[in-house]
Amino acid sequence: MWTLDNLPRQALKARYGFEPDEAWVQRLMHASVRLASGCSGSFVSPEGLVLTNAHCVLRCVSELSSAKSDYVDDGFVARARADELRCPAEELNRLVAITDVTERIAAATANRSGQAYVDARDAEKARIEAECVGDDAASTRCDVVELYGGGLYHLYRYDRYQDVRLVFSPEYRIGFFGGDPDNFNFPRYNLDMALLRAYEDGEPVRTDAHLKLAREGAAPGELVMVTGHPGTTRRLLTVSQLQRLRDVDLINGLLYLSERRALLWQYGRGSEEAQRQARSDLTFTENSLKVLRGQLAALQQPELLGQKRKAEARLRKAAAAADGDPWAAIAAAQRAYRALEAPYQMIERALGFDSKYFELARHLVRAAEERGKPSAQRLREYQDAKLTRLEQTVLSSAPIYPAYEQTKLAWSLSKLRERLGPDDPLVKLVLAGDSPEALAAKLVAGTRLGDLTLRRRLWEGGFEAVSASTDPFIQLARAIDTVSRELRQRYETEVEAVEHKNAAILARLRFETLGTQTYPDATFSLRLSYGEVAGWEENGRTIEPFTRLAGLFARATATEPFALPRSWLDAKPRLDPRLPLNFVTTNDITGGNSGSPVINREAEVVGLAFDGNMHSLGGAFGYDETRNRAVAVHSAAMLEALEKIYDAGALAREMTAP
Amino acid sequence: MWTLDNLPRQALKARYGFEPDEAWVQRLMHASVRLASGCSGSFVSPEGLVLTNAHCVLRCVSELSSAKSDYVDDGFVARARADELRCPAEELNRLVAITDVTERIAAATANRSGQAYVDARDAEKARIEAECVGDDAASTRCDVVELYGGGLYHLYRYDRYQDVRLVFSPEYRIGFFGGDPDNFNFPRYNLDMALLRAYEDGEPVRTDAHLKLAREGAAPGELVMVTGHPGTTRRLLTVSQLQRLRDVDLINGLLYLSERRALLWQYGRGSEEAQRQARSDLTFTENSLKVLRGQLAALQQPELLGQKRKAEARLRKAAAAADGDPWAAIAAAQRAYRALEAPYQMIERALGFDSKYFELARHLVRAAEERGKPSAQRLREYQDAKLTRLEQTVLSSAPIYPAYEQTKLAWSLSKLRERLGPDDPLVKLVLAGDSPEALAAKLVAGTRLGDLTLRRRLWEGGFEAVSASTDPFIQLARAIDTVSRELRQRYETEVEAVEHKNAAILARLRFETLGTQTYPDATFSLRLSYGEVAGWEENGRTIEPFTRLAGLFARATATEPFALPRSWLDAKPRLDPRLPLNFVTTNDITGGNSGSPVINREAEVVGLAFDGNMHSLGGAFGYDETRNRAVAVHSAAMLEALEKIYDAGALAREMTAP
Repeated sequence: MWTLDNLPRQALKARYGFEPDEAWVQRLMHASVRLASGCSGSFVSPEGLVLTNAHCVLRCVSELSSAKSDYVDDGFVARARADELRCPAEELNRLVAITDVTERIAAATANRSGQAYVDARDAEKARIEAECVGDDAASTRCDVVELYGGGLYHLYRYDRYQDVRLVFSPEYRIGFFGGDPDNFNFPRYNLDMALLRAYEDGEPVRTDAHLKLAREGAAPGELVMVTGHPGTTRRLLTVSQLQRLRDVDLINGLLYLSERRALLWQYGRGSEEAQRQARSDLTFTENSLKVLRGQLAALQQPELLGQKRKAEARLRKAAAAADGDPWAAIAAAQRAYRALEAPYQMIERALGFDSKYFELARHLVRAAEERGKPSAQRLREYQDAKLTRLEQTVLSSAPIYPAYEQTKLAWSLSKLRERLGPDDPLVKLVLAGDSPEALAAKLVAGTRLGDLTLRRRLWEGGFEAVSASTDPFIQLARAIDTVSRELRQRYETEVEAVEHKNAAILARLRFETLGTQTYPDATFSLRLSYGEVAGWEENGRTIEPFTRLAGLFARATATEPFALPRSWLDAKPRLDPRLPLNFVTTNDITGGNSGSPVINREAEVVGLAFDGNMHSLGGAFGYDETRNRAVAVHSAAMLEALEKIYDAGALAREMTAP
Repeated sequence: MWTLDNLPRQALKARYGFEPDEAWVQRLMHASVRLASGCSGSFVSPEGLVLTNAHCVLRCVSELSSAKSDYVDDGFVARARADELRCPAEELNRLVAITDVTERIAAATANRSGQAYVDARDAEKARIEAECVGDDAASTRCDVVELYGGGLYHLYRYDRYQDVRLVFSPEYRIGFFGGDPDNFNFPRYNLDMALLRAYEDGEPVRTDAHLKLAREGAAPGELVMVTGHPGTTRRLLTVSQLQRLRDVDLINGLLYLSERRALLWQYGRGSEEAQRQARSDLTFTENSLKVLRGQLAALQQPELLGQKRKAEARLRKAAAAADGDPWAAIAAAQRAYRALEAPYQMIERALGFDSKYFELARHLVRAAEERGKPSAQRLREYQDAKLTRLEQTVLSSAPIYPAYEQTKLAWSLSKLRERLGPDDPLVKLVLAGDSPEALAAKLVAGTRLGDLTLRRRLWEGGFEAVSASTDPFIQLARAIDTVSRELRQRYETEVEAVEHKNAAILARLRFETLGTQTYPDATFSLRLSYGEVAGWEENGRTIEPFTRLAGLFARATATEPFALPRSWLDAKPRLDPRLPLNFVTTNDITGGNSGSPVINREAEVVGLAFDGNMHSLGGAFGYDETRNRAVAVHSAAMLEALEKIYDAGALAREMTAP
């Protein structure tokens, strides 16, 4: 997960004889995109066509669907530009420049701690980002990225595209073939691909760099690289942080998601329409469950924590007295977090208010208040540099289903009461003698936040309009805001600030003792990973690196999630059964890398990363080349499907044109 | 948790000046009863009246209810004997004699290990129990009880009562006031009491010993004792066993129950009738969740495992070479269990087939096969001594709701597939290309096991009738039985037998080094716990030991689970607000003790144990007198409610008659 300004050129040369020049790196950077909703992608034509995963556009496809036209089930193909449909709330970012701003942050935070440290750091970050964006918020996005746990701060400047249209997404049955049972497993048989197109001023973006698809793909052992935006790894955490993660966050997260999963599943059994409404949330809930389960399994292995303990002991020996005891400080912050976790998660992170209505209400209430302050003093997500994206989210035209929202809300309010206890003052304030069920019914019956016109009026009307609103969700968000902000402040000062400040000390210690030839933890910023096409050994069995179309048809049954869509059953005689469908590589990727191009040394797309194997989930804490594998769709299968199944040869040609 | 043949007479005398004589002990033993469904109780009149908890009879009350007459919601009072309703599947056991059979088991198992050890032990246990029961299975029950993890084997002979009738159960709203949020918490405000009556030959049992209620209760600091049947504690487990529990059983159990909880909750939201159907399961699921959560929290404390490690190291020093390395052997068994856990739990423990239909089908299939063998060679639960209770379970007249069963089954089949993977041979055999949802629908639509007449025919028809059955659940149970029995055998030989054999070695070591003045882990056999009425300190706050009726009314709201039933609201002016309602004591109890009488030194009932505080959940691994507390209903509140709310003064008189 190397940053593009610090590629492992020596290792690439030594191991693979590959020496990319600066033009190669620049082109790759300009052809890689980030989906603001949390994925990666790449430009694959000079006309703004973006290749990513079906699961990365699932929310968009779901929001564009209705009971009458269900593009999730039926798939979507725009055979002409005019048919391309705008996603209600998607944004693409394309990295154009990286600048080191470590010195500015260091100068601003020197000799500060606690709240003063947080304020100084955040204000300086906001200033840097604002200067970078200038007057061009509509088409520029700037993020100060923290690397090596605060050892380095880099400013990433992106081109921003908010007019993102859906071009192609396959039927759910093939885009998610095997469903949750096959997720994070391999052998695998998925066409988890989708196409979007970036528009500017109503026209497709004229991309200055793109990658083209190579039909033949890559051979076993061949060098392949992945560019993309891995979200989060935790490889530099201290032992006390890992223990907290294991005992608190992962357990509580798993229990919350397990309940939510059955809730959504049983809700969906009510009717086909109910199932359609819940499907996207259910898919992501099940995915998160597997991720957390895999992470917990990794942290339960005594070997992993044992290795971390040893590494910590070695680093501790190298520490000078001037460094203080960063481990002890971080351990104290973990104790503070354990005491704070339940209210912080349930209230400020809103796990106790699981509803789109509440999310909208909180944004409206907070934006109204925050926008009255200078940008650098606001809560992060309301600073000027962030407002463009936030407005898009709040004013999304995606449909909201009252009965569905009521279900999630009633359930999550009962979790709020469970985690904080019925005698907690905030719980009493919120429920006010009602049951979670009764309160959710009242709130949903009374709200008008589903009306986009009203939301726009509140967004544009600012503090005055929001203060005057009698909408019950607005009132709820307002009623709990003081308590919620206090929790956030305590979290940021007692936990986060202590962790960051001391992580920066540890980062410097690591630079001094281990050098800089390691890559930083993932932070949803652009990275390049190198590796090769290769299977692995599992309990003495060799897992081959490729699956083929024949295997897909052999695995198919008549029922979900192993049922094939009509289109594939019909096309079967026309398809080459030996064509590779999915494959695994040794690339070190993680969540956020979904949709990343897998490229060869000519920067041709030979695959599309969409998943990892079970072992890759432990990758959150350390990469193991013998077993961690990325899973990708093969380029040949993508082209074959477009040409022979979806009658979309024009798109295939656009992606392969010389 | 002292066995009644080994009371801590010295400690009772030294600390409380109390010296019970043999008659006192015998009377207590004969007045204490066990509910075979997993609770405790006591005879409180000479005419077979039994005092226990409302939650202990919830399943019975639920099974006696219908959409038209919902005794769960409305409560039930039999004001005449003729109104008392027989529970479809309850059994009372009253201990009459304890005999030491350790030598017999030791002789039978000498020099054996693995399967041979299991077979020899089980066969000898079966022989002992069969000799004890003789020809009197209808009214005698005998259990060989393992104490000190196999250090001692005792034969417990019980009187058996299968005609158990419901006399009184309050409305759910007051029996479970505070619901899941207040469960395992204190201060508490519950009337978690119920009355049953044991019948013999159609007449109330003439009890030779009973306890009478003392209206005034016990004073703070006063000695109180609890008799009852604590189910399971794990205080003598080795560190490797505790680690397995923490990392495998508790995590997987919590995730399973969390999903099941939301499933039942959302199912119940469908209609009032659906809610009624799911309520009893939901209550027990939520209760189990809290228990496991509390146990996990205890095992996550580094101090607890640290103490266990130290104790283990001390004992290890005392071990002679002749003992071998019991800890290593037990640790190896834990590794075996970790590999076996998913299929064993999902298939043999039937977590993947969560439905009453499957439970019935498996019993019918296995009983048909097992009853063809000599009793001592059968699976434990089909030996002659167990058949009386099993027949009652299989031929229970409790209603079964097809849509509800289908819901649980569809969900649990998806868990089966999830835990074992879609490529597991048994999963493929079971699903046979269907989805869990489709298979559950087919099975439930096709079965006739809801018909008691058919079940009776299959039970009585034995192997021939069951083999000829085409009922889809019978076919399913038959289809997986070979695999399931293999899993059981592997579990019993590779895990359980190793644990037991080595636990016996450790038990002897402990006797030698620590003496016998400790009590054995709970095993659902009769125990006496002594303690006193006392609050505790929580985060620097003192928790008072009593709650009062005034507090109940102050806590009540208009909505579940804090809504009071009509009867209590109407009666409020007639009640004494200062009357004690619930109280806490230092008695060491655990699940299974529910319904236990809390008595004073005159063996008068001053309270009714129904719960513990949150700290008591960690009691699974060790008792902490400073914080572990039992929670009980006060005798005054029980009598007041019967007299002034339920117009059941006759019952109150029966329980207090001199």
